[in-house]
Amino acid sequence: MQMDDMILVSIDDHIIEPPDMYENHVPAKWADKAPKVVRNAQGVDEWVFGGEATSTRFGMAATVGWPAEEWGFDPGTYSELRPGCFDVHQRVRDMDANGIHASMNFPTMAGFNARTFTEAGDKEVALIMLRAYNDWAIDEWAGSYPGRFIPQGIVPMWDVDLAVEEVNRLAAKGCRSISFLETPHVQGFESFLSGYWDPMLAAMCDHNIILSLHIGGGFDVIQRPKEAPVDHLMVLACQISAITAQDLLFGPTLRRFPDLKVALSEGGIGWIPFYFDRIDRHVQNQAWLHERDDFGGKLPSEVFREHILACYITDPSGLLLRDRIGIDIIAWECDYPHTDTTWPNSPEQAWGELQDAGCSDEEIHKITWQNATRFFDWDPFKHVKREDATVGALRARSTDVDVTRMPKADWKARNEAAGIGVFS
Amino acid sequence: MQMDDMILVSIDDHIIEPPDMYENHVPAKWADKAPKVVRNAQGVDEWVFGGEATSTRFGMAATVGWPAEEWGFDPGTYSELRPGCFDVHQRVRDMDANGIHASMNFPTMAGFNARTFTEAGDKEVALIMLRAYNDWAIDEWAGSYPGRFIPQGIVPMWDVDLAVEEVNRLAAKGCRSISFLETPHVQGFESFLSGYWDPMLAAMCDHNIILSLHIGGGFDVIQRPKEAPVDHLMVLACQISAITAQDLLFGPTLRRFPDLKVALSEGGIGWIPFYFDRIDRHVQNQAWLHERDDFGGKLPSEVFREHILACYITDPSGLLLRDRIGIDIIAWECDYPHTDTTWPNSPEQAWGELQDAGCSDEEIHKITWQNATRFFDWDPFKHVKREDATVGALRARSTDVDVTRMPKADWKARNEAAGIGVFS
Repeated sequence: MQMDDMILVSIDDHIIEPPDMYENHVPAKWADKAPKVVRNAQGVDEWVFGGEATSTRFGMAATVGWPAEEWGFDPGTYSELRPGCFDVHQRVRDMDANGIHASMNFPTMAGFNARTFTEAGDKEVALIMLRAYNDWAIDEWAGSYPGRFIPQGIVPMWDVDLAVEEVNRLAAKGCRSISFLETPHVQGFESFLSGYWDPMLAAMCDHNIILSLHIGGGFDVIQRPKEAPVDHLMVLACQISAITAQDLLFGPTLRRFPDLKVALSEGGIGWIPFYFDRIDRHVQNQAWLHERDDFGGKLPSEVFREHILACYITDPSGLLLRDRIGIDIIAWECDYPHTDTTWPNSPEQAWGELQDAGCSDEEIHKITWQNATRFFDWDPFKHVKREDATVGALRARSTDVDVTRMPKADWKARNEAAGIGVFS
Repeated sequence: MQMDDMILVSIDDHIIEPPDMYENHVPAKWADKAPKVVRNAQGVDEWVFGGEATSTRFGMAATVGWPAEEWGFDPGTYSELRPGCFDVHQRVRDMDANGIHASMNFPTMAGFNARTFTEAGDKEVALIMLRAYNDWAIDEWAGSYPGRFIPQGIVPMWDVDLAVEEVNRLAAKGCRSISFLETPHVQGFESFLSGYWDPMLAAMCDHNIILSLHIGGGFDVIQRPKEAPVDHLMVLACQISAITAQDLLFGPTLRRFPDLKVALSEGGIGWIPFYFDRIDRHVQNQAWLHERDDFGGKLPSEVFREHILACYITDPSGLLLRDRIGIDIIAWECDYPHTDTTWPNSPEQAWGELQDAGCSDEEIHKITWQNATRFFDWDPFKHVKREDATVGALRARSTDVDVTRMPKADWKARNEAAGIGVFS
């Protein structure tokens, strides 16, 4: 097996939703209530919804085209972005150039957990727009390229009954995942332990839909010093996946839902062997706490492995201990177009790490596509032949894609001259 | 090398301070103000200070003598405890029976970070009692057995100038460590990043005294769901050592104090390879954040290794990746008399794990005593010959120590009949 023989399925990438996303998905009656992109007085493209600029801007979320010195939280314009951020046709070409066969995408303007709609005052309108988002993401974005995207949606977090309805509606569309919030109690919602979300989790189990908990949403679970630099957020985000796992494992959630599957998106894998050592010793050593036998006669690490997919971008130490994690629960990801992405050198980066860790060909296939597609119950070769899905095949047909990083000003000049990213 | 050839120096054990600890260390004028143990109406021995029961009770902190079914947070009486918890002569025999040559002890009634005195209303009295605690811990407890205890003290956290004075006073006594608070900002103090503690840290550097940050004190840095079981606290406590390291590394503290040394007591080691992967990639990838060159041209993992001692009780995954952590910064510990202790089988447990990880004899010596004694700048063989400090030698002279666990009621009956643990 060579690098070009790999098949890469990334279960964590991001869409910068294009300004015209609502056009085909909002009933005429509500069209003028749809979120709109407006270029403000400072020259920044903002999503305006319900008369106010939303709190989700792309800033740091779309740096893939720029040199690192230009990264930052300042929002800008669509025209400054690499078009693959928001244009599905360019996105697929960017995937090809990076040897990525398939991808699952998280929202940006909508928020990982529908935050934009949850924060809105008019919940009737918010629900219509949330559904429009889902219809666009699944039918239009993913639907444009069958076999290239694992469909994912979001649910109205402000009402669990509406969330159940939306899960059922999305299941009928072939949706495979719901992007939710890793530690809901931190943002004022009921916790996973409370039981409040159980009807939604039950609906997800009914349809074998995966609960995807991306890092970042729960960051406030850690009380940072007021002087902490922005690095804290970036470095410690993965520690929160351990906290999330703890909430699920040591609460009743996984006990109540033996079929529930949870992806810890971008959570990394290197913390898991240490966490397993600790929880397995804990329940054996602190026997006085576990007379209830919360884990059904199993070790908590075994229960974790039955329910959870652990996802990483780059994780050399974790790969060395893959046997202690469980080779069947590890999935690679790309994180396009965020700062941590390995695009356009994902094959080189992934292959190098897998080789350094001494992975066999079988292990490489598990990590790069088999575990993810089995877990998400999504057939990677339904629409694309396997031999057309390899790194080598995808790159061979996309040699014309220019992967050079350019300053924002150059992107803006080039894109605006071509009418790209200009929507007013 | 065989198990019996090991030398064990544990830099994390605990004292349950005996009721008579203040007798020899409080000036006569203040004697009636000293904390006192009172058996309350429920039959529980409580420390009373300033007219109120203090918030630090031993409950879970002294379970070493009991079967696991009897562990719990309920406080009890001194007479229910294994006497090695509070009697230094019995402690040394318990160390012998467990093959432990030397130990560093953290406070219980005083709090890891002098909490009992910091919470007191009368700070003049509090300071006198805090100094009495230190004098007792260093001169009387550790002083009773030269060469068997690494002396450690606490500082008045309510006033950094007083803390500096106490560091200087303790240094003159040969104190090697200050037990402080891992995330001070969480308990209403200034953070490490604030600069407030700098004069104290400077004094510690002047005397080459180590900052020991034990897990647990900062647990509220994580916002738990209100339904979280007690397991959360026990399982996640080590995750906070990563947060503590982050505060120190990505704040100015280690930059300002190139000589500062920090022990992450009971923090575990298995999280470190993952954390190193993440911080090293972070500063290389997020170059826009690090124009200041916060790490002096080094990788953050290198700076961590220059300053920090990583301490573990049992950590099989971490030991497998010892090369990625740094073989010179790992130290073993025993945690007597807490629930996580491996007493009385620490040699078997430690040796088994070190062998399973394939450690060489040289690596075993580094981990079990050399790293700790170098880091704390404490000569382990000044008072005891090396050949008398091995597991085999210590156990050979303590074959009469009964290490059987017994129900609390049996301890109480036996101890009270012998006048042990009865102080009213």
